[in-house]
Amino acid sequence: MEKREELYAGKAKTVYATEDPDRLVLQFRDDASAFDGTKREALARKGEVNNRFNAHLMRHLAAAGVPNHFESLNGADESVVKRLEMLPVECVVRNRAAGSLCRRLGIAPGRELDPPIFEFFLKDDELGDPMINESHIVTFGWAEADEIEPMKAISRQVNDVLTGLFADASITLVDYKLEFGRFHGELLLGDEFSPDGCRLWDARSGESLDKDRFRQDLGGVIEAYEEVARRLAIPLGEEAR
Amino acid sequence: MEKREELYAGKAKTVYATEDPDRLVLQFRDDASAFDGTKREALARKGEVNNRFNAHLMRHLAAAGVPNHFESLNGADESVVKRLEMLPVECVVRNRAAGSLCRRLGIAPGRELDPPIFEFFLKDDELGDPMINESHIVTFGWAEADEIEPMKAISRQVNDVLTGLFADASITLVDYKLEFGRFHGELLLGDEFSPDGCRLWDARSGESLDKDRFRQDLGGVIEAYEEVARRLAIPLGEEAR
Ligand SMILES: Nc1ncnc2c1ncn2[C@@H]1O[C@H](COP(=O)(O)OP(=O)(O)O)[C@@H](O)[C@H]1O
Ligand SMILES: Nc1ncnc2c1ncn2[C@@H]1O[C@H](COP(=O)(O)OP(=O)(O)O)[C@@H](O)[C@H]1O
Ligand SMILES: [Mg+2]
Ligand SMILES: [Mg+2]
Repeated sequence: MEKREELYAGKAKTVYATEDPDRLVLQFRDDASAFDGTKREALARKGEVNNRFNAHLMRHLAAAGVPNHFESLNGADESVVKRLEMLPVECVVRNRAAGSLCRRLGIAPGRELDPPIFEFFLKDDELGDPMINESHIVTFGWAEADEIEPMKAISRQVNDVLTGLFADASITLVDYKLEFGRFHGELLLGDEFSPDGCRLWDARSGESLDKDRFRQDLGGVIEAYEEVARRLAIPLGEEAR
Repeated sequence: MEKREELYAGKAKTVYATEDPDRLVLQFRDDASAFDGTKREALARKGEVNNRFNAHLMRHLAAAGVPNHFESLNGADESVVKRLEMLPVECVVRNRAAGSLCRRLGIAPGRELDPPIFEFFLKDDELGDPMINESHIVTFGWAEADEIEPMKAISRQVNDVLTGLFADASITLVDYKLEFGRFHGELLLGDEFSPDGCRLWDARSGESLDKDRFRQDLGGVIEAYEEVARRLAIPLGEEAR
């Protein structure tokens, strides 16, 4: 698909219009960012790894019945997606306690969360992506009231599908962030599912295999993403061409 | 009712056992506190004003069908209440934007909130009473799953009853905090409803008539509480004896 004008350059991806008004190209860049964009760095191969990782998982989710925007790969670091009207909320599912949950609620890191925790955040870097609830969403019009349950239900469905997929690769899916949007009135999963937006721990050692390596300056960030891809049999680099 | 041993001294009230294992005496002290207990001061007459204020509103709520713990006055600064097993959550209802909502979500102070916003907070001074959601409550067992809807429904019922009561006294009920507890399995409104735990603005001038006067060092704190009581025809001091 032909890329036309650049519509938006986010922290990690650039969004392009195409000849089809209903389709976009997402370009996954090598840029990494954390702490609401205050820490930034370029990490070689990240764009390609995340693009292929996301393509693999979005296809897997679609096959499992999770409606999403992914259409096709468009080269190593680009994908064609349905053009969504994005909702300014992030949906977070947590199977184990980590990160801000531990700080906010005094919960021990690693604690199993049964049932898994579901949280909404407002997508707003200036406000530091604050946690919100359904009442805020309705009163401030960040989504329609009848879009709330579907976002929660799809987020849980993603959990059912992906916890098993990762467990089979000896990886614990600790938590993840999803974004949704509207396509001709239908709610679809959008954005990406990659190690940038989730926590993945080696099931045996507990080692982080995700963006926490970047946040915590642990090094080997993309090597860890590639290890996850290898375990999920996602072809990368030469193999993928 | 006879006070027996002191069970708990909170930031503003002291809780006593009585000869009846199902009843407590709440003593409303003159102590004021804010910012999770970091700012503290004694304000003359506060205990009595809040006790009589709370008694009046709890009776009004009971008459309007809102189940609550209040039983009877027990002197100027004490009340007899049903002994509840308190839930460690605070329920906040907001009709206008103020305080932490404005800071967290970048909302202009005074903005009308339609529908009113409902929020849960964890009652934990050390953690700074963080905002939580229903998922946290269920996973961490802070209440039973089937107590969540009743807390929300009773909180909204309180709003329907009290916005009118205050409006008739030319006062805007901006927001308020409620606490609930279990009495032999039944969910009841507990704790207090007083100017310590709500925001009340003069409908014409917008002036604060609540604990924000203490938080913001505006002075005239108890005089403002007394003005609200006067407008609601709540007898205080000599009149009340
Ligand atoms: N299918 C889609 N249609 C329209 N916008 C999308 C779609 N998928 C993702 N987006 C948006 O594109 C942007 C992706 O770039 P990213 O670098 O992640 O941005 P941000 O810094 O805003 O998170 C995000 O704002 C995301 O909401
Ligand atoms: N009916 C009740 N039964 C048992 N405890 C109650 C009841 N009503 C209120 N309480 C509790 O008594 C304490 C009241 O004292 P307060 O000074 O407000 O304490 P705190 O500093 O914990 O807010 C609170 O912890 C409140 O939850
Ligand atoms: Mg993003
Ligand atoms: Mg209290």
